[in-house]
Amino acid sequence: MSVRLFDTTLRDGTQREGVSLTTEDKIRIAKELDTLGVHYIEAGFPASNPKDLEFFENFDASELENARLVAFTRARRPNGRADEDPAVTLLPSLTAPVACIVAKSWKLHVEKVLRTTPEENMESVRDTVSYLASAGKEVLFDAEHYFDGFRDDPDHALAVLRAAAESGATTLVLCDTNGGTLPTELKAVVQRTVREFPDVEVGIHTHNDAGCGVANALAAVEAGATHVQGTVNGVGERTGNCDLVTTIANLQLKMGLKVVDEEGLKKLTGVSNYVSELMNLTPDTHRPYVGRSAFAHKGGLHVDGISKDPSTYEHVAPEVVGNVRRTPVGELSGKNSIKAKAAELGIDAGDAAQILSAIKRREYEGYHYEAADASLALLIGRTAGEATPLFELETFRIISEKRADGRTTTEATVKLFVRGQRVISTAEGNGPVNALDKALREAIGPHYPELKEIHLSNYKVRILDEHRATAATTRVLIDSTDGKRVWGAVGVGENIIEASWQALVDGLEYGVNSG
Amino acid sequence: MSVRLFDTTLRDGTQREGVSLTTEDKIRIAKELDTLGVHYIEAGFPASNPKDLEFFENFDASELENARLVAFTRARRPNGRADEDPAVTLLPSLTAPVACIVAKSWKLHVEKVLRTTPEENMESVRDTVSYLASAGKEVLFDAEHYFDGFRDDPDHALAVLRAAAESGATTLVLCDTNGGTLPTELKAVVQRTVREFPDVEVGIHTHNDAGCGVANALAAVEAGATHVQGTVNGVGERTGNCDLVTTIANLQLKMGLKVVDEEGLKKLTGVSNYVSELMNLTPDTHRPYVGRSAFAHKGGLHVDGISKDPSTYEHVAPEVVGNVRRTPVGELSGKNSIKAKAAELGIDAGDAAQILSAIKRREYEGYHYEAADASLALLIGRTAGEATPLFELETFRIISEKRADGRTTTEATVKLFVRGQRVISTAEGNGPVNALDKALREAIGPHYPELKEIHLSNYKVRILDEHRATAATTRVLIDSTDGKRVWGAVGVGENIIEASWQALVDGLEYGVNSG
Repeated sequence: MSVRLFDTTLRDGTQREGVSLTTEDKIRIAKELDTLGVHYIEAGFPASNPKDLEFFENFDASELENARLVAFTRARRPNGRADEDPAVTLLPSLTAPVACIVAKSWKLHVEKVLRTTPEENMESVRDTVSYLASAGKEVLFDAEHYFDGFRDDPDHALAVLRAAAESGATTLVLCDTNGGTLPTELKAVVQRTVREFPDVEVGIHTHNDAGCGVANALAAVEAGATHVQGTVNGVGERTGNCDLVTTIANLQLKMGLKVVDEEGLKKLTGVSNYVSELMNLTPDTHRPYVGRSAFAHKGGLHVDGISKDPSTYEHVAPEVVGNVRRTPVGELSGKNSIKAKAAELGIDAGDAAQILSAIKRREYEGYHYEAADASLALLIGRTAGEATPLFELETFRIISEKRADGRTTTEATVKLFVRGQRVISTAEGNGPVNALDKALREAIGPHYPELKEIHLSNYKVRILDEHRATAATTRVLIDSTDGKRVWGAVGVGENIIEASWQALVDGLEYGVNSG
Repeated sequence: MSVRLFDTTLRDGTQREGVSLTTEDKIRIAKELDTLGVHYIEAGFPASNPKDLEFFENFDASELENARLVAFTRARRPNGRADEDPAVTLLPSLTAPVACIVAKSWKLHVEKVLRTTPEENMESVRDTVSYLASAGKEVLFDAEHYFDGFRDDPDHALAVLRAAAESGATTLVLCDTNGGTLPTELKAVVQRTVREFPDVEVGIHTHNDAGCGVANALAAVEAGATHVQGTVNGVGERTGNCDLVTTIANLQLKMGLKVVDEEGLKKLTGVSNYVSELMNLTPDTHRPYVGRSAFAHKGGLHVDGISKDPSTYEHVAPEVVGNVRRTPVGELSGKNSIKAKAAELGIDAGDAAQILSAIKRREYEGYHYEAADASLALLIGRTAGEATPLFELETFRIISEKRADGRTTTEATVKLFVRGQRVISTAEGNGPVNALDKALREAIGPHYPELKEIHLSNYKVRILDEHRATAATTRVLIDSTDGKRVWGAVGVGENIIEASWQALVDGLEYGVNSG
């Protein structure tokens, strides 16, 4: 059996609260999905959304090497004509060879939302499907609320599918639009439906409202579905869609179905992170298969087991999906974890007990090293007496003013010693950390030309004891990059500027010394 | 059939990367779980972790009204004696009436990790279970890696369970420790196991490594398991444990099993948020049932459907699980959404088109109103000409210095007009936003005594265009509370201080004017 993957990150995925993509971003994601090896890429609803139309006008379907480009639309309005409905007639002019048409399959919706009769609804399906099939499109049919509709009236739900199949739809996609169906019920409905339609493909489109988005897609495949819709990272409205990343890994590694090639499978972690970044979402570190913590072993027993045989505590090998094994250092860690960590960082652990106690003391103060490899490496190095600071600080000062004309200006002055020389430098910046960063680079840059390659790539602030309001302790995490590697540094203090300074300095020191 | 809920947030949940709880926090969570109505609360592994022991020494099991307190431990060491193994002999001295004992049920682990024989492993199970049962404890038995073990050698896995059952364990908990088993296989194994043990309870403990943590727990219950282990929000090692919050809602609302009472069900959203807060984790807004977006309707079609009949686009009613329906305002919104939002906020929408265009312009600049109800209400009010600012700013200035002695000091000066009076006030703070907050309160506080009740409860910073490094646009979200309500405000700017100032002022203005 072969199963086809249908990605709707760019259409249903953009319904996620807080997400907004530019056309340029959408094009980049489409190309990335293409290299992953999905079979269909649904890129938008061009008749409803001008931004989606812009995508289809700027991106030719032939630019995809593997995937077929899909444009989404609804069935024509009740009592209208498909060849006169702009939402339908737009599609033949697009380069996308595939049309995905959504229509109601639940009588409640036909009557309450569409305010028409089941007969007219089915006529609309026939009219729209045959119009687009005649126009040469491959037509997929999304039966909205199929499972609610089937629960309510199976004959009606099946009749809607039949209207689509008889008019030229080649795949009937059963949508659990409200996401509330559980796997056992869903599986039975899919089985029954597959039996009714031996000559067309049956697909599945699930949501995660009951936490079963992925499990439902798998259940459907077991029941005979051969087309699976989902989104990268499960982004989507409300609680999201079926996570295609997890689903691909499960289908291929657990159910023995070859849906992508081995190289595609290895891209899963990268694609997941890439889409999070373009969507401006913090990656879920605990995401199955691809999360930063998915193969992190914290408990002492687990770390010990892994060192004897990885299969003792890993359901699959992390590298198969492009992820890596990690042994984060935290308060539950022991000396073995420190040694493993030092080895991972390429540092001599020296006296692991002393390092462990230094880490525990700092964690007590609010530092957190799990996402701050650079600061951890520096702490291990400093505790082992191997520190090589870039400079010695005397003082810094920041002045930020909001003036009467409404403009805000900020300047920073640093006074420091670098390689025996006292330097004073002042710089203006857009904000205090930017001004500090500039003044510091101006002061020490002539001695460290490699600083030019190092940029701050992310800046996070976390209030540790929120009930203390603005007086709370602040933890700052700064990610830096030299274009090849990314590393994290942490700073803690009651003053966000002091905390940012620590992370800034650690990030630069690590970058220069490990480069 | 009745199903018992076993919460292990305080034991397995604390294995989540980045989580650390104080004893005080653990006590607060235990009490919260007790009011929710779970049947067992596993609070730690006291023999392994001094912090867990501190909990059991400071919290008497009788303080729980509904739940039974559980202490976790491992079976005694190979070739030792239960009555001489401190990890076992510690338990009778604790007030917890229940002991949960973990042991290996996978031969790979017995041989590679434990380095003993299957016979000695089973002897260790018998010895430990009967020792603790004789000491008067209710004994639950966690069969670690049960599904991997069963796949490898069913007779061995069943023999380990038999050793526990024959020695006095009343519940045999089948653990999918590596989290990689899919529902169909898991269900078959549970069915087979339940048949083998008609006289004891069979429980299920799942992890989310294949994205099926919840679905696996439900599959086990369908197969006859009557005891479900999980954690609030699915916190746990790697990708986490079975999410007990989603599972409770599914068991009760979808599978017709009464696991908690109606009041407990209504507490799910609150408990989920409370545990996130104490664990210092950002709540997952897209979490099934309880996430902030779980009943948010963004697409125009959906908003329209919901207004006609909520069941058209909602799988359950949000209030049943203590959540609320929301219609977030974003670029996909139309005028109807704005009107719905204004009604939700108790504001006259006035000219919805004008408000919508103001929102779109601000969102283009980087503002984001989905989590900033206060700023949105103020924007709607201002656009409708109903602004009532608390003061008029002339200028502010912040000076922050890191001195030669290593101390960092910050002061803020604000110059403003409040009710016709010009006021200058300077305050020191732990950081720039704290100093600004203090100086502002000092300046306007005499005119607005209600400010005393309003506190900042959370402060988040997001870099919008990360590639621009520290020069990037910054978005600040500040949550404020008066102890009864919580509201969010947003500020945007290249300067984090300017962005924070906007959010600070919006938060105070909304708090005073809506109080």
